[in-house]
Amino acid sequence: MSHPIPSRLALLREAMRRHGVDACLIPSADPHMSEYLPDHWQARAWLSGFTGSAGLLIVTPDQAGLWTDSRYFAQAERQLAGTGIELMRQRPSQASEHLEWLRQHLGDGQTLAVAGDSLPLATRELIDRRFASTGARLRTDLDLPGAIWTDRPPLPVAPVVEHPIRYACITRADKLARLRTAMRKHGASHHLVSSLDDIAWLTNLRGSDVECNPVFLAHLLVAADGPATLFVDRRKLTDTLVAALAADDVRIANYATIADALGELRAGDTLLLDAHRVASVIADAIPPAVRRVEAANPSTLLKARKSAGELDHVREAMRRDGAALVRAFRRLEERLAAGMTQTELDVEALLREERSSQPDFIGESFATIAGYQANGALPHYRATPESHSTLKPLGLLLVDSGGQYLGGTTDVTRVLGLGPTTAEQRRDSTLVMKGLIALSRARFPKGASGPQLDALARAPLWASGLDYGHGTGHGVGYFLNVHEGPQSIRPPVPGTALHALEPGMITSIEPGVYKPDRHGIRHENLAVVVEADQTEFGEFFAFETLTLCPFDRRALEPGLLNPEERAWLDDYHAKVRAALSPLLEGADLVWLERHCAPL
Amino acid sequence: MSHPIPSRLALLREAMRRHGVDACLIPSADPHMSEYLPDHWQARAWLSGFTGSAGLLIVTPDQAGLWTDSRYFAQAERQLAGTGIELMRQRPSQASEHLEWLRQHLGDGQTLAVAGDSLPLATRELIDRRFASTGARLRTDLDLPGAIWTDRPPLPVAPVVEHPIRYACITRADKLARLRTAMRKHGASHHLVSSLDDIAWLTNLRGSDVECNPVFLAHLLVAADGPATLFVDRRKLTDTLVAALAADDVRIANYATIADALGELRAGDTLLLDAHRVASVIADAIPPAVRRVEAANPSTLLKARKSAGELDHVREAMRRDGAALVRAFRRLEERLAAGMTQTELDVEALLREERSSQPDFIGESFATIAGYQANGALPHYRATPESHSTLKPLGLLLVDSGGQYLGGTTDVTRVLGLGPTTAEQRRDSTLVMKGLIALSRARFPKGASGPQLDALARAPLWASGLDYGHGTGHGVGYFLNVHEGPQSIRPPVPGTALHALEPGMITSIEPGVYKPDRHGIRHENLAVVVEADQTEFGEFFAFETLTLCPFDRRALEPGLLNPEERAWLDDYHAKVRAALSPLLEGADLVWLERHCAPL
Repeated sequence: MSHPIPSRLALLREAMRRHGVDACLIPSADPHMSEYLPDHWQARAWLSGFTGSAGLLIVTPDQAGLWTDSRYFAQAERQLAGTGIELMRQRPSQASEHLEWLRQHLGDGQTLAVAGDSLPLATRELIDRRFASTGARLRTDLDLPGAIWTDRPPLPVAPVVEHPIRYACITRADKLARLRTAMRKHGASHHLVSSLDDIAWLTNLRGSDVECNPVFLAHLLVAADGPATLFVDRRKLTDTLVAALAADDVRIANYATIADALGELRAGDTLLLDAHRVASVIADAIPPAVRRVEAANPSTLLKARKSAGELDHVREAMRRDGAALVRAFRRLEERLAAGMTQTELDVEALLREERSSQPDFIGESFATIAGYQANGALPHYRATPESHSTLKPLGLLLVDSGGQYLGGTTDVTRVLGLGPTTAEQRRDSTLVMKGLIALSRARFPKGASGPQLDALARAPLWASGLDYGHGTGHGVGYFLNVHEGPQSIRPPVPGTALHALEPGMITSIEPGVYKPDRHGIRHENLAVVVEADQTEFGEFFAFETLTLCPFDRRALEPGLLNPEERAWLDDYHAKVRAALSPLLEGADLVWLERHCAPL
Repeated sequence: MSHPIPSRLALLREAMRRHGVDACLIPSADPHMSEYLPDHWQARAWLSGFTGSAGLLIVTPDQAGLWTDSRYFAQAERQLAGTGIELMRQRPSQASEHLEWLRQHLGDGQTLAVAGDSLPLATRELIDRRFASTGARLRTDLDLPGAIWTDRPPLPVAPVVEHPIRYACITRADKLARLRTAMRKHGASHHLVSSLDDIAWLTNLRGSDVECNPVFLAHLLVAADGPATLFVDRRKLTDTLVAALAADDVRIANYATIADALGELRAGDTLLLDAHRVASVIADAIPPAVRRVEAANPSTLLKARKSAGELDHVREAMRRDGAALVRAFRRLEERLAAGMTQTELDVEALLREERSSQPDFIGESFATIAGYQANGALPHYRATPESHSTLKPLGLLLVDSGGQYLGGTTDVTRVLGLGPTTAEQRRDSTLVMKGLIALSRARFPKGASGPQLDALARAPLWASGLDYGHGTGHGVGYFLNVHEGPQSIRPPVPGTALHALEPGMITSIEPGVYKPDRHGIRHENLAVVVEADQTEFGEFFAFETLTLCPFDRRALEPGLLNPEERAWLDDYHAKVRAALSPLLEGADLVWLERHCAPL
């Protein structure tokens, strides 16, 4: 069978020729600016064959390039082989290099086409500015990939359900009231929300339109002094739910009519919207007479600061998740000891099975990464039935997985020693552990941002000439997306906002080291920002580690840890043991105690 | 005698009334955007009474506020008492809060006046943007403070001299050639330089128009395919020097004619200028038909990366400077032991005396800070004949001083234990030492910026609820300004550039802790960025410490240092001893050996 990608690119180029388009940009995006996309908007994967979550494709009559970051270099190299598409390696902190490429390749009078439903308003404005000096122009009214994609998957229609108030902790009415308070501060009479996790949080609703993210396709238009309107496929909601929403003055409208509703806004109205979270095709419907206030969605920050009630549920979810991990890892060890053949796919299945037997478990929070030896060096590896490794009693298995529970979202990475490990593996693993410990132990002043702290996790690796190409920590939702903002712990990037880490924010702490074709290490816990101290120098915050699962000491070299680091790890293991032992018995309990003993 | 400030403010307000001005902003600035100003441009100090190096005054008909940063809070509070001027405390990373204040206080049709020779072009553009939505307007053609300042000091006329090529290492012709290469990359036919250290570096000339900074008042206009013109008071140069400059195609013009020269640029010319380093009044002279390229002065980066030859001279200057410090500190100890009365002013004098006896010493690189006990808590303290402390055999003396040598500029802070110290003093001092060591030992990848590394020095302090309100490190010139860019080590500030630390850059490393009315600690070394390692993860850089002077262990608590930290300090002291002992003898050598023994 010939490779399908070149013929799809040929179709696209033919469409470009017909429409007089000189370059076509196909981002990974939907009208909600989601990180993970329903199949309906996976045009970039369909056209390029590259299935990673981050990447964008640019096609010109004689060139095609796929820009992605270092997490995906190895995967993209493999998946792009034979497509004629060149891998363009994005450097960290250079997220818009492709725009510079376009600026240099498109001259006066030439046209770039991007489907308007896959381009944030802010990016359109950025491209317009970049192109101002070249004479090139941007068209967003042509969806060329959509036009040639004959077997495009339909929009998902999964049901929408209430997030029970016992777990949601704050009522929908309360959340909307808080949102309206923030709207008034912006002088906004209306607010458009297109980002799905904001909508799910504000409405206390959940869905399953996107794999692993419990969200549903919708837009939300909130009036400061009137109703909120949820634009959603009516078939997804029961009559009871519609009535419950109506009781909170939330009305239902057809998903496809958001543009019409925006078109009915009047002069004198002030619309608050986040240009980074609204598609340009939708913003185009706003009448020019409507005043716009562009600012971050207020719900993003409200949602990020978890309440005490939510955190109690998260701590319980962490216990359940930790117990599931212990049982899965113990059973894997038992099977391997018994000489059973086990593959990376079996690890995924074991984790799914154990998490599924936990109360309030809904599903995985992302596709499990079980990467054995060299596969662990691919930070976003995914084993498939066609391509996966069989485990041997040797070396390292990296397992990055998470669950969606009614009471929280988990995300944890452990590196298991399946047998003899090399000195290099243990050393790398221990240096990464030093990074995790340094950041986990950090205190920092109120106002400090993630980019300010990022180096604390990297310094122990830098000292040995090691580094990692991804961020150190991402925000995590509450029974919502496993990646959320506004905060993130990563190197500072010029021109981007610095969000302070605030009490209640949950972040991952996940340094790593990846040695292609050899091994990969990542240690990952979730932690919540807590108030730690008040001194004459101000307020100081700290991280409370939430994740409860022992680290595998067979993959560590304790002699490389200093006394403070050992003490931190011993304390952590004592806490894990105390928290999980009531949930475990028999061989599982023995396994826990062995793995939680002091180093 | 009544306080002079209120009557000066009354004069200013009268002038404001006459000109229909609703607010007057008086920055600390000259037409060269220097950090330290000739008296001629000290209008802010003259009008407010506040003499700190950083701060700006805003006067309205019924309010007056002085904005400064935390280094100067205590000093400003004292100096503003009785003036009617309110101290406005700038928060770190909020350097333009005063513009927000102006935006809120000035309404439609109201006018802000700022003297155009004390406002960078970039700030004028920023104010214009901020005011766009308010209807307020900015006038830069009125110098109201200048108009009422009857006894304004004249412009300085100190001589300009060659920086001998033996020290300058690179000829003026070479430097101008490098500059022209950079100009061509920007497509610039001309380049305007107003920043005095850039001009001094490019021309291999030095002066003494500004206290402690060996620069001279000038502008430089460089043609890519023609001469360079130095706008300078001709009386400052000998005929021999003028001839030498002419031999390198550098012509001399009257300092005051820079605007006329810019006015003669023609359509088709492209002028490169740094909007942050050029005064708006000078930029106003550029004909509209001239194309402008706004970018950092290329010389700033060229100058920041010291050459191997320059670094050799710097290492020698550090030996001389270290020997002077040892002799001064030893003599101070001897005098105190002998029961002589010694004040902070005597410490300044001792340092000046010892540095003056070193070869190639030109002068101090900034006013010495000798702060005893509580005075050390004022990061920019300066003892005066009217107000200073007498030393006692008790507690801590903070000494921050530096020298200008033909072969480099030094800047060093040591904290001396003059007798019994409190446990809190030793603990604070040791925690600051941990911060200095953490950053001094750091390795970091190529491309890392100062703001990315800043937290490494703070984390040991944060852990104990301590912090400091200033940056961690500033660039240092080569027989030039003790503060220079582009790099700096400080917390990230939204919207500002991140300059990578590059090999050859010299930076201070100077964490601190300041406890008002009790004590202040700062440990400061200079270090140069060096290449350290090349691994599969890329290039890694490190700091080589340049400063050579022991830390006083009587002000430390060695038990709080971990083994790596002790090892670093012992290694450092061994290096200091080896470097300085050939320059010392007798009691000085004994003192050195005692202070450099392992902890």
